[in-house]
Amino acid sequence: MIKAGIIGATGYAGAELVRILMGHKEVEIVWYGSRSYIDQKYASVYHNMFEIVDATCLDDNMEALCEQVDVIFTATPQGFLASVLTEKILSKTKIVDLSADFRIKDVATYEKWYKIEHKSPQFIEEAVYGLCEINRDKVKGARLVANPGCYTTCSILTAYPLVKEGLIDPDTLIIDAKSGTSGAGRGAKVANLFCEVNENMKAYGVATHRHTPEIEEQLGYAAGKEIVINFTPHLVPMNRGILATEYATLRKKADGSLPAYEEVKAAYDKYYANEKFVRVLEKDVVPETKWVEGSNYVDVNFKIDERTGRIVMMGALDNLVKGAAGQAVQNMNLLFGLDESEGLNLVPMFP
Amino acid sequence: MIKAGIIGATGYAGAELVRILMGHKEVEIVWYGSRSYIDQKYASVYHNMFEIVDATCLDDNMEALCEQVDVIFTATPQGFLASVLTEKILSKTKIVDLSADFRIKDVATYEKWYKIEHKSPQFIEEAVYGLCEINRDKVKGARLVANPGCYTTCSILTAYPLVKEGLIDPDTLIIDAKSGTSGAGRGAKVANLFCEVNENMKAYGVATHRHTPEIEEQLGYAAGKEIVINFTPHLVPMNRGILATEYATLRKKADGSLPAYEEVKAAYDKYYANEKFVRVLEKDVVPETKWVEGSNYVDVNFKIDERTGRIVMMGALDNLVKGAAGQAVQNMNLLFGLDESEGLNLVPMFP
Amino acid sequence: MIKAGIIGATGYAGAELVRILMGHKEVEIVWYGSRSYIDQKYASVYHNMFEIVDATCLDDNMEALCEQVDVIFTATPQGFLASVLTEKILSKTKIVDLSADFRIKDVATYEKWYKIEHKSPQFIEEAVYGLCEINRDKVKGARLVANPGCYTTCSILTAYPLVKEGLIDPDTLIIDAKSGTSGAGRGAKVANLFCEVNENMKAYGVATHRHTPEIEEQLGYAAGKEIVINFTPHLVPMNRGILATEYATLRKKADGSLPAYEEVKAAYDKYYANEKFVRVLEKDVVPETKWVEGSNYVDVNFKIDERTGRIVMMGALDNLVKGAAGQAVQNMNLLFGLDESEGLNLVPMFP
Amino acid sequence: MIKAGIIGATGYAGAELVRILMGHKEVEIVWYGSRSYIDQKYASVYHNMFEIVDATCLDDNMEALCEQVDVIFTATPQGFLASVLTEKILSKTKIVDLSADFRIKDVATYEKWYKIEHKSPQFIEEAVYGLCEINRDKVKGARLVANPGCYTTCSILTAYPLVKEGLIDPDTLIIDAKSGTSGAGRGAKVANLFCEVNENMKAYGVATHRHTPEIEEQLGYAAGKEIVINFTPHLVPMNRGILATEYATLRKKADGSLPAYEEVKAAYDKYYANEKFVRVLEKDVVPETKWVEGSNYVDVNFKIDERTGRIVMMGALDNLVKGAAGQAVQNMNLLFGLDESEGLNLVPMFP
Repeated sequence: MIKAGIIGATGYAGAELVRILMGHKEVEIVWYGSRSYIDQKYASVYHNMFEIVDATCLDDNMEALCEQVDVIFTATPQGFLASVLTEKILSKTKIVDLSADFRIKDVATYEKWYKIEHKSPQFIEEAVYGLCEINRDKVKGARLVANPGCYTTCSILTAYPLVKEGLIDPDTLIIDAKSGTSGAGRGAKVANLFCEVNENMKAYGVATHRHTPEIEEQLGYAAGKEIVINFTPHLVPMNRGILATEYATLRKKADGSLPAYEEVKAAYDKYYANEKFVRVLEKDVVPETKWVEGSNYVDVNFKIDERTGRIVMMGALDNLVKGAAGQAVQNMNLLFGLDESEGLNLVPMFP
Repeated sequence: MIKAGIIGATGYAGAELVRILMGHKEVEIVWYGSRSYIDQKYASVYHNMFEIVDATCLDDNMEALCEQVDVIFTATPQGFLASVLTEKILSKTKIVDLSADFRIKDVATYEKWYKIEHKSPQFIEEAVYGLCEINRDKVKGARLVANPGCYTTCSILTAYPLVKEGLIDPDTLIIDAKSGTSGAGRGAKVANLFCEVNENMKAYGVATHRHTPEIEEQLGYAAGKEIVINFTPHLVPMNRGILATEYATLRKKADGSLPAYEEVKAAYDKYYANEKFVRVLEKDVVPETKWVEGSNYVDVNFKIDERTGRIVMMGALDNLVKGAAGQAVQNMNLLFGLDESEGLNLVPMFP
Repeated sequence: MIKAGIIGATGYAGAELVRILMGHKEVEIVWYGSRSYIDQKYASVYHNMFEIVDATCLDDNMEALCEQVDVIFTATPQGFLASVLTEKILSKTKIVDLSADFRIKDVATYEKWYKIEHKSPQFIEEAVYGLCEINRDKVKGARLVANPGCYTTCSILTAYPLVKEGLIDPDTLIIDAKSGTSGAGRGAKVANLFCEVNENMKAYGVATHRHTPEIEEQLGYAAGKEIVINFTPHLVPMNRGILATEYATLRKKADGSLPAYEEVKAAYDKYYANEKFVRVLEKDVVPETKWVEGSNYVDVNFKIDERTGRIVMMGALDNLVKGAAGQAVQNMNLLFGLDESEGLNLVPMFP
Repeated sequence: MIKAGIIGATGYAGAELVRILMGHKEVEIVWYGSRSYIDQKYASVYHNMFEIVDATCLDDNMEALCEQVDVIFTATPQGFLASVLTEKILSKTKIVDLSADFRIKDVATYEKWYKIEHKSPQFIEEAVYGLCEINRDKVKGARLVANPGCYTTCSILTAYPLVKEGLIDPDTLIIDAKSGTSGAGRGAKVANLFCEVNENMKAYGVATHRHTPEIEEQLGYAAGKEIVINFTPHLVPMNRGILATEYATLRKKADGSLPAYEEVKAAYDKYYANEKFVRVLEKDVVPETKWVEGSNYVDVNFKIDERTGRIVMMGALDNLVKGAAGQAVQNMNLLFGLDESEGLNLVPMFP
């Protein structure tokens, strides 16, 4: 059995890791790390785990933890892992980091968007960006995996084949994303109270959201050049789910015509036909967040608008699964040479 | 592999059966029966099943179906199974009926509350009421299992130990139950539109709801006499979940005092300490529907009100799992001698 | 114009007072008191008021405020008004207190349920319990009105005629109440986050909720004797609305029969036929919270259960209007001899 | 008193007209027209109107109706008004049409997008597009007002000043709009059931939604040329509210720089500073649908993205008020020379 520790086990992403790992045949959680609930029964913080998890919350001491486990998941606030990571820790255990600390290769970009000093720039280069469908081979040999953000996973996978194949002009890319409220975390803030979110919708972080440079970096690799995009997240009155609606201008073909449906579909199939967790939907079926809830799937589809010459791409995932804990487990499976879908055969729950 | 057929596979309870059976090691679904969607791809009706279920919907021909399967689940409107059931069908296959056709032993009571003629009274006697925690042994040898209703499962299990042990006066029992909207089914009705249910709450079927006689019959067995109760269901703006709040007068002890917390707790533990799917919560922790969502658990607890001499009992379950499809699978496991929890190790999803 | 000050203007009840008073022809708000948002624009705390309210939040200094206004609304935490009230203040201005400080006549009862010392017991006797439909005449001459609680207004009005007319045995009264989340206030607590409340339902304060003695006291007056009841509140995933489902044993008539529908209806009509804000619904129409949302109405109805000899009474109101700010304005109208419904001709909003 | 008739009074937009007109001093509703509920009490269809509206539903006979009223509101399915309108009717009464029949000047465009033959093209020319803030003077003298669509009102008002002033390139305009579910109407459809919409989000009508040509026509007038845009509506799990997030490339100034915040703000102020119902929010305050709920306001704001050279414009309104019934009453006020805001001093309800 692989021994796993979780730092930040009492946040929503940490709790989802626990839920998923309960169904994983090869993993045992031996450390439920928390800052707020030390010495409390884990099941008293998450009552769904009553009679399932008997453990008590421990602290977030990575030095102690790395001696006991094969893998550490850090579902922690920005800056935590960078502030405690050492070569010694990395030499003893693998790390899947659900925070943004090691997602961005350029330190200056990280510090500009996150408004925080990076305390461990020496590990950035070796960290592998854990978007499994794109970086699978690199993940397999890594010590430190930077698990992608929820918005970014959805945004990148929705557009990736068309950027990679040059079917769209990446500088015209506009991503309008909508997220359920679990993405905001379990902190007690007025803005996230039921009565403030329910029956309401708004944009936030307009032109300043931290997932922007992460999307730009990854899609820039696909495009073969640096790109800038518009990314606007919105808060939606639901618990789970991200829907990304993405707009871009299609590159015309040599004869001046737009690519046909079949040509675009072929590009998606080229990259995703063999990907279990990316479902390219049938023509005219739109992705809906509810159809992937609780599962590790990303559903994608597109519509060509002949009138404007643009394409509308759509992607949907569960922000806590493929957007966080599910992808973290997928990365862990790769790290340890397991079946990539072990523990992730989660059938979406409807309704 | 056990071959299973589902009649009514495109209703919410049928769809939940499909979801659960996808994770069951010993069962293969070979017939997705539907009245409304014959010849359509099942995954086009429930898009969560895209790339998971490749089958096409078939009709509801029980005669044909019974030749091909080991077990049939009927998740059908009242009266369907009673109108088609024959000795021949029962001799070829086992049946777990999620409708109310065979739940009530007295035909007159059934016909009075359901306002429908019972077409197969000859099978009522042999049908076993499939509340596993209470009727486990009877279920094991049955051909025809009447799977309990959602409200009734929650209502009965919440009060059962206290009725059985004589701690409460069963004639004082009042059950105030609240249900998510999936219990109303997938039929297109104005009353179940999003805008009519959302931000709204109401009672319905006051003093006339069909689950009343079912609760009275089963708790009457526990009480050793016929009882009448008040049962009031309410519609709540959420997808899943039933919460039953039950009130009854505690029987005083010989010395005139009320039973202590520990005595009541001991009664619950007597019946549920070894029941995996009934969780008796710790003192002062109230059942919440969200903590059991997606799982086969029933969470129960109670509070003694010294001032009034009454006890408030509370129970919560997921109406589509323990209240329908999960319990149906639990019954099927018993019918075929499998581990009772096979396919049902569903960790509740939160949030 | 009547000059009004609000202490606690930035809570949900205070904000609803502002909303309602914006449409009141005879009142001008001159003081938006707040503890958390002093010196901030009121419209920056409640953006709905942008370009409607230009004022800046002031403090909660009652001594200063009473010199400037004709009436003060205190929408404050328990204990605030009792800790600052003086004869001087009461000699200068009228007060409508939306907290519980002066609702309960017996100090010991208050202190037992609220677990707080009462700092101004000398004003309890003169305070009038402002349930307008019952205490209208007393309110007219008062200096200090104790505005009833949200649950209590709904619970009392739903049962009052039957208690008063002796149609039910008040000691059998069980109140199962359900409330939207705005009743929990705007404080930042994990338990009230969107993801914790949404898709969830639970009871709370079982057998210990503070509105219990308030209901008992008022219905005790109607019964002509002290009574104890069961009161269980529940949290529902909606913003506004309270639904009370109440159970009681009907008193049999001299001939041993139960009262007929018409007799019970006549009792409701006796007290409410001329009450604008209490709507006794037509037979078999159940109260729904959505049908009163945003308005000052209470909708009530009932169903006799011949089988058990009990009656099920149901009442619905908007907890922020008739359950708080609307009733406060209704009381203010009485205090100043205005049309009781001035400012309260609010048509319920649906959907 | 102005006598008004409503055809389609039992749809959500019709019901909102009734709610608003109840508070209008100069109007009396004399005809509640319905196709589905003829001869039923209006208050039995919309229980919020119990003891407020005593009328019974009548049919949709425009010939009879026009003899009795000063104004008719048609809140009807596409094609109804066009199929019954006559010169005689128009000579007797004014009409505010909430359907799309007379919104689009080009018949071919209408027929292409609506897939329906236009039965009264002779009245298209005279119909005035009733977006009050832009066409106020034309509305005043009209007989037939085409009340704008919900999405279109929000989409147009959010972008109008920048298109009109030439600050953005209108051909780069992309509108990503999100709507509450009341916009889908009260028809009984599976897709609009609570369980299908709740906890879900999706796009629909991608590149084909009928409001597209309406937006293009009106913004084309502002641009002084024909334009094509991308418009993508989404369904959100809330009752009311539309949020439009709009993207366009800013035109650079002569010196090659982007317009400053103040320059863009000045453009909004030029058109809206004196418009009561359009609120240009303060810098960095984003429009939220909840802050305008139940009111006739449109809240707008914007953010310049220096990195991409684009501007993100945002607008929020209540689809049933400013997006339908409120704007219809605003138009009626203009038609009859009343104060434009009579009946529309609706303070947004929060929470």
